[in-house]
Formats: sequence, structure tokens, C-alpha cells
Amino acid sequence: SAAQAQFQKPEDAVKYRKAAFTVMATHFGRIGAMVQGRVPFDGAAAAANADIVAALSHLPYAGFVEGTGGTEKGTPKANVWTERPKFDEAAKKMQGEVAKLAVAAKANNLDQLKAAFGSAAGSCKSCHDDFRNQ
Amino acid sequence: SAAQAQFQKPEDAVKYRKAAFTVMATHFGRIGAMVQGRVPFDGAAAAANADIVAALSHLPYAGFVEGTGGTEKGTPKANVWTERPKFDEAAKKMQGEVAKLAVAAKANNLDQLKAAFGSAAGSCKSCHDDFRNQ
Repeated sequence: SAAQAQFQKPEDAVKYRKAAFTVMATHFGRIGAMVQGRVPFDGAAAAANADIVAALSHLPYAGFVEGTGGTEKGTPKANVWTERPKFDEAAKKMQGEVAKLAVAAKANNLDQLKAAFGSAAGSCKSCHDDFRNQ
Repeated sequence: SAAQAQFQKPEDAVKYRKAAFTVMATHFGRIGAMVQGRVPFDGAAAAANADIVAALSHLPYAGFVEGTGGTEKGTPKANVWTERPKFDEAAKKMQGEVAKLAVAAKANNLDQLKAAFGSAAGSCKSCHDDFRNQ
């Protein structure tokens, strides 16, 4: 995207992508709390949270600059770079699912929210399974 | 906003607000680099970055939950909570300035971008001077 540029230092890229995922995960988690019945369903809140997740979903990937992988739990595995097209595909899959979640959330219907949340969560997990150190 | 809810633990609130500011600062800094002539002016990139800053500008404040201040450099001072209306006013001021920056950035004119960037940067600094430990 036009908003993306080189990072001055690799650690800036790491800090940025982690930050973007932290904000996304916070708002995604608030929908999860409704879906799992831990907090009461609130359609307006679900829609607002889903919009934030969808907007943020495009940001973290610019932070995956080569040489910022690792072996520790939670760090990106080397295949983020050796299989970059597959990684980019997984990112696009998630972006599509959270865009659908943002649409579904506007229906103000818990069952539709649950279905879309499940698909979106699946796209997160699938990418984590493939590309993140356990 | 409807997207905001209680954080489970104070440290979650701190992590969240820092993350939101990190993403904001990254994109704001990319406009700064153009304004200061460190990278060539690119109107589309300025506009895309400014939109992200404006969207993010509403997020961090929910993370300023009572009891998460400090005395170390960079942490919030106690007056965030003892003077909360003044702090909220400063937040609103910044949100207004970055909304104006997002409009100005769409004009594709470096002088307009510089003026709006300067006002927005001033609103950041003013709040940091008043409410953040030096």
C-alpha cells in the first residue's frame, strides 16, 4: 500500500508488526468474548470492533522484512521468507475473512457473527500453525 | 466508542495503548519524513498514511486506565487521572488535528501538508509536555 515504506532498522519493523497485531487482537478478542458468551452480545460493539480489525488487517505485513525471523516461540519461522507467496496468500485469506466479519457484524445477529468469527479465527490459526514458531 | 471495553488486566491496557501509539507514530513519521525533506514528497502516500493516523487516533485513550501511570521517562504522569478532563481535551485536540491532516493530505500539495503536519505535531508535543514523564 502507499502508506508502507522501508523501516529504518529491522527492530522498528518488528515493533511495528507486533503493535499492529496487538491492536488487532484486542479488538478481535472483544468479538470473541461475545461469540463465546463471556460478555453479552452487543451488535454495535461487534460492528465497531470488526471495522477496526478489518482496517488494521492490512498493516502488519510490511513489518515482515527479511532477516527478522527467529526460533523462539512466537517469532516468525524462516518459511515466511522462503515461501513468501504462500505467506502472502495466508495474509490475504485473513484480510478477506475479517472483511467478511465486518460485513457480518453489521447484521446484528449473533449466529452470523459466530460463523464469520469462526472463519476469521481459523485463518489466524492456520497462518500461525504454518509460519510462527510454537 | 462502542469498540472499547474494559481490559482484563492493567498491563493489557498499557500494552494496547503503546501498540496503538506505535502504529500511529510510524505512519505519522512517514509524513514527517516528507515534510522534512528526508524522503521525496508523494501525495498518495501522504494521504494513505494520514488516513491510518486519523483512524488510529481514537484508539489509545481507552488504555489509560487508572493506576497505570508511573514516574519513569515515557510513562503517563499522575495528572492524566487527576486532570482527566484536561487530558481528554488534549486527546480531542490531537484527533481534530490529525483529521485535518487527513483532509489536507488529499490536496496533494506539500505546503498544505507541512502546515497541517506542524499543527498535528504540536498537539502531540503539547500533550506529551503536560502529561508524560520526561
